[in-house]
Amino acid sequence: MTIGIIGLGLIGGSIAKDLKATGQYRLLGCDSNPDHASTAESLNIVDKLVTLDQLVEDSNLIILAFPVHSIAQHLPHILDKINSAQTVVDVGSTKAEILKHIHTHPMRARFVAAHPLAGTEFSGPTAALRHLFSGKKNIICNSVDSAPGALEMALKIFNALGMESYFMDAGEHDKHLAYVSHLSHISSFVLSLTVQDIEKDEEQIFNLAGTGFASTVRLAKSNSKTWAPIFDANLDHLIKALDHYQYRLEEFKSVLKSRKTEDTERLIIEANKIKELIKN
Amino acid sequence: MTIGIIGLGLIGGSIAKDLKATGQYRLLGCDSNPDHASTAESLNIVDKLVTLDQLVEDSNLIILAFPVHSIAQHLPHILDKINSAQTVVDVGSTKAEILKHIHTHPMRARFVAAHPLAGTEFSGPTAALRHLFSGKKNIICNSVDSAPGALEMALKIFNALGMESYFMDAGEHDKHLAYVSHLSHISSFVLSLTVQDIEKDEEQIFNLAGTGFASTVRLAKSNSKTWAPIFDANLDHLIKALDHYQYRLEEFKSVLKSRKTEDTERLIIEANKIKELIKN
Repeated sequence: MTIGIIGLGLIGGSIAKDLKATGQYRLLGCDSNPDHASTAESLNIVDKLVTLDQLVEDSNLIILAFPVHSIAQHLPHILDKINSAQTVVDVGSTKAEILKHIHTHPMRARFVAAHPLAGTEFSGPTAALRHLFSGKKNIICNSVDSAPGALEMALKIFNALGMESYFMDAGEHDKHLAYVSHLSHISSFVLSLTVQDIEKDEEQIFNLAGTGFASTVRLAKSNSKTWAPIFDANLDHLIKALDHYQYRLEEFKSVLKSRKTEDTERLIIEANKIKELIKN
Repeated sequence: MTIGIIGLGLIGGSIAKDLKATGQYRLLGCDSNPDHASTAESLNIVDKLVTLDQLVEDSNLIILAFPVHSIAQHLPHILDKINSAQTVVDVGSTKAEILKHIHTHPMRARFVAAHPLAGTEFSGPTAALRHLFSGKKNIICNSVDSAPGALEMALKIFNALGMESYFMDAGEHDKHLAYVSHLSHISSFVLSLTVQDIEKDEEQIFNLAGTGFASTVRLAKSNSKTWAPIFDANLDHLIKALDHYQYRLEEFKSVLKSRKTEDTERLIIEANKIKELIKN
C-alpha cells in the first residue's frame, strides 16, 4: 500500500517516521516549502519525494498535514483528482471550516476528517519524532459522512501510530479544542509578549526564569504558520473563550488589589481543581 | 553543626532531605501545621521535631521556609531571640517586604535574605524531593547588610544543595520575579478558572487536553497558602505586569477579530523570540 503525505513538518514527518518503521508501506511525500522538502529528503523521512500531482495519483491513502486554511483551500481540488478507491485524511487542528468546503463534493465520502491530539512546540521536518502519537487520542469528526472503507483505511493508519480513535461532531470538536488547546496557546503567546516588553533586562529572563515560567511559556514557541490559521478557523469559539479569560483576569486583579488574601486564596483553590480534571 | 528548619513543606522538606543525606548536620524541624509536622516525622525528614522556641535556641543556622507574609511577621521576633553566633536565612519568593520589617533590627546582620529558584506545583512534606535545588540558581538579596560570617554560613548550605548563588538588590529581585514568575502563575490560575467555567463537559477536559494544555495550566495546581501572600507582598510590580498583559491580550484579540492572519503571524513570531531567552 502506498501512502502519500503532503506536508513533512512536525506532524507529517512524525507520521512518516512511524509508518516507515513498520516496513509495511511505500511512503511518498511532498512539501511546498523547498527547504522542508530538501531537509525531509536528507533525513530520509519518506521513500520518495514527488510532486503533489504525482503523489495524489500514486497513493492509496493521502494524508494532508499542512496548515488548516490551506487544507480548506486545497482539499476540494485534491478530491477532484482521486478515484473511489483512494482515501484522503487530514490531520488539522480545526474541523468545521474544512468540512464546510467539501460538504457537497461528490467524493466527500472518500475523505476522513481527523485530529490526532499530539504535538510539540517545535516545527518542520527536523522536529519530527518517532512515537509522537503513541498512546495519544485521535478524534475523527463527522464519520457518518465517510465511506466505511475510507474510515477503515484511516483507522488502520492511526492504529499503526499507536492511537485510539474517538468520534465526534466537528462543531463540538472545534468548541472543546478552543477551550482546552487554542486558548492556552494564546495565553502563552501573550505571556511571552508581555515579559519581553516589560523585562528590559533580557539577561534577567535568562537568569531568573525557572521551570514554572518555562512550562507556562512553552507554547509561545509554537509555529506562526500553523497557529494563525487555526485561530482564524475557530474564531467564534475562541473569542468566547478569550472574553471569559479577560473577565476572570480582571476579577483576579481586582481581588489582588483589594488586599484580601483570603479572597485570593479562594480563587487559587478554585483554580487548583484542575488537578482532578487532567492526567499529568 | 545544627540546622533548624521552620516549615517542612515542599521547600523546607526538600532542603532537609538533601542536607540530611550529607550526614554532616544535625537537623531540627518544626511546622505550625500539625498534619505537616506528623507527616514530616513519619517520613523522617529531620532528625528531631521540636518546638519553635527550642529550634531557635538550639540551631546554629535557622532556615525559614514558610509563607512570605508569616516570615515578615515572625522574623523580628526570631531575631530578638538569637545570639550573634547564630544565623537566620529565609527562602521566600519575595524579599523587599520581609527586609522592611527588620531594617533597623539590632540583629539584622545575622539575617540572610535568600531565594532559591526551584519548586514544583506540589506542596507539603510529601512533595519534598531530593535534588530539587541541584544545578539551580539561588539569589541572595541586599547581602551588604548581612555579616560576612552569616553570609558564609548561608552560602555553605546553598552550596551543599548544589546551587550557585547570585547577589541582587531586593527591589530589583521582586520586580524581575513579578515578570518571570508571579505573572505566569496568575495567567495559569486564570486559564484554569476560565476552562472550568466554560467547558461544561468536564469529561472533555480529561479527554481532549493534550500536553500543551497540561504544560500551560501546570502552575494552576500551586498552593494557595504560598502564593496568595507572594502576590500581596509584590502587588505593585505585579499589577504593572498584569496591566501590560491585559493590554497585549486585548491587542491579540483585536488582531484575531480583524481576520488578517498575517498580523496574527507577526504577533506569534514576536512571541516566538522567547526561544532565545530561556534555556529549556
